[in-house]
Amino acid sequence: MVRPGGRSARVQAAVHTAVRELEAEVGRDALTVPLIAQRAGVTPSTIYRRWGALTELLSDVAVERLRPDTAPGDHGGLASDLAAWAEQFLDEMSSPAGRAYIRDALLGDPDGSNAGRCSAYAADQVDVILTRAAERGEDTPAVETVMDRVVSPLMYRILFRPAGLGAAYARGLVVGLLEGDSAGN
Amino acid sequence: MVRPGGRSARVQAAVHTAVRELEAEVGRDALTVPLIAQRAGVTPSTIYRRWGALTELLSDVAVERLRPDTAPGDHGGLASDLAAWAEQFLDEMSSPAGRAYIRDALLGDPDGSNAGRCSAYAADQVDVILTRAAERGEDTPAVETVMDRVVSPLMYRILFRPAGLGAAYARGLVVGLLEGDSAGN
Repeated sequence: MVRPGGRSARVQAAVHTAVRELEAEVGRDALTVPLIAQRAGVTPSTIYRRWGALTELLSDVAVERLRPDTAPGDHGGLASDLAAWAEQFLDEMSSPAGRAYIRDALLGDPDGSNAGRCSAYAADQVDVILTRAAERGEDTPAVETVMDRVVSPLMYRILFRPAGLGAAYARGLVVGLLEGDSAGN
Repeated sequence: MVRPGGRSARVQAAVHTAVRELEAEVGRDALTVPLIAQRAGVTPSTIYRRWGALTELLSDVAVERLRPDTAPGDHGGLASDLAAWAEQFLDEMSSPAGRAYIRDALLGDPDGSNAGRCSAYAADQVDVILTRAAERGEDTPAVETVMDRVVSPLMYRILFRPAGLGAAYARGLVVGLLEGDSAGN
C-alpha cells in the first residue's frame, strides 16, 4: 500500500493526472511513457520501475476510474436499492468509457489484482446495500449471491453478449434474485 | 463469412497455423506481423488488410481455439449433463491457456464480435444439453437463463474474482438453477 502524502503517493497522483489529461488532449492511442513522464515531472524510468509498462499503468488508472465515488442511494427498501444500483452499474460499465476502462483494467493485469479491485468495489457497494437492509430488518441474500445473480450477468453481457442489455434486464435480475429468496432459495 | 476452400479460407488457415506454431516456438510476446507472414507464406500487407493489427489477429486465433470441438457429454439427465459441462467449461476457461485466449479474444476486438462468438459457442453447447433434456421429457430452463445463472458467474469469477472457484462451485450453480426452477422460478 502507498502511504498517503508520501513521495510515492505524490508520484502516483501526478502520473495518474498526466494520463487523464493527455488522454483527453491527444487520445489514448497516442500515449507513451516518455510523454506521460514529461507531463508528470518524473523520469520515464520512475514509471517503468513502478508500473512495468504502459499497459500496466493504464490498467492502474482505469481501476481508479472504476472506483465508485458515492455510496449507493437509499430508496427505502432492499428491492429498490438493489434495482437502482444495478441500473446505475450497468449504465456506467456499458458506456463507451466504462467499456474502455474495463478492457484496460483487464489488459495490463497479468496477476489479476486490478480486476480483483474492480470486483471488490462492486462487492463493497452491494455490502452497503445489504447491511442497510439488514438494519431495517429485511431478509438479505449473501454478498456472493448478489455477485453471482446480478453483477456477474451484467458484466458477462457487457463484455460478451450485449444484445438485449438494458435497465429492464438489470431490474429483472434483482427481481429474480429476491423472488428466489422468498421461495426459500 | 469465408467460403470454405476458397483463397480467403486458405490464407486464414495458413495464418492461424503460423500463429499457433510460432507461439509454441518463440512465445506470444515475440510474435510480429512480418514473422507470421513469412511463416504463412503471405505478405505482411495481406495480414494488415485482413486483420488490421496483430492484436486483432491474435483475437481471431484465440476465438478459434475457444471453439468447442466436441458436443457436451450425455450423462442421462439434465442435472448431470449441465453439471459436467459447467465443470469442463470452468476447467478449460480457467486454465492458463484458457485465460490467455479469453484476454486475447477480448482485447483485439473493438466491435465485440469476437467476444460475441465466444459467448455463442457456450450458448450453442447449452442449447444442445437443453434440447436433449426436452426430448427426454424433462422441464428445461431457457438458454438465456443458463447463461445468466451458470455461464456468467463462471466467466465473471474467472476474470475478476477467482477466489473459491472450483468444481464444487460450478456444480452448485447448476443445483441452484434447477432447484429454483422446480420451485416455480
